[in-house]
Amino acid sequence: MNLLFPLPDAGLAERVDALTTHAGLRIERIVSLGQASPPGFWYDQAEGEWVLLLAGAASLRFADEADVYLLQPRDWLDIAPHRRHRVDWTAPETPTVWLAVYYW
Amino acid sequence: MNLLFPLPDAGLAERVDALTTHAGLRIERIVSLGQASPPGFWYDQAEGEWVLLLAGAASLRFADEADVYLLQPRDWLDIAPHRRHRVDWTAPETPTVWLAVYYW
Repeated sequence: MNLLFPLPDAGLAERVDALTTHAGLRIERIVSLGQASPPGFWYDQAEGEWVLLLAGAASLRFADEADVYLLQPRDWLDIAPHRRHRVDWTAPETPTVWLAVYYW
Repeated sequence: MNLLFPLPDAGLAERVDALTTHAGLRIERIVSLGQASPPGFWYDQAEGEWVLLLAGAASLRFADEADVYLLQPRDWLDIAPHRRHRVDWTAPETPTVWLAVYYW
């Protein structure tokens, strides 16, 4: 199984595929094409999320931090449960592919 | 944090870095440079392992299956607990980088 081939078309909406689910763990591939979090929206998840950008580019921000994270391929972050965050931007013309490992 | 830059030198031995550890979850980066499992050796792990190849190339085999898996970048496998497996080969001249998500 390959994470980039084939890739679903995310032109209309972000595409999420669960790759693996076990007790306390879910691994997803997320494909974005220009999508971003709605204005003023913050993710506030009960689950922790370890996220790796595999292709494309994205800008991510935390509510508790002024820095903006411009993510390039192979950049990763570990987002603690309930740490509020949002995606300000994803590349508009090339797919951005995320690997998200949720744990609880 | 980037998974490929910087990369440790695995010329003398495989290099393993824990990226994240939580209850029931451990994420590691493993860098190989030509290493393989010793002849006759099979991994037999109590933990499940979801593994993604990020760079290089590797050949992986299961004790219960005749097929050989030639892994290319972005290929992934989910290895169940106690499913015996071995790495027959990794690319000798370019680093092979694995992302391993262990769960239990």
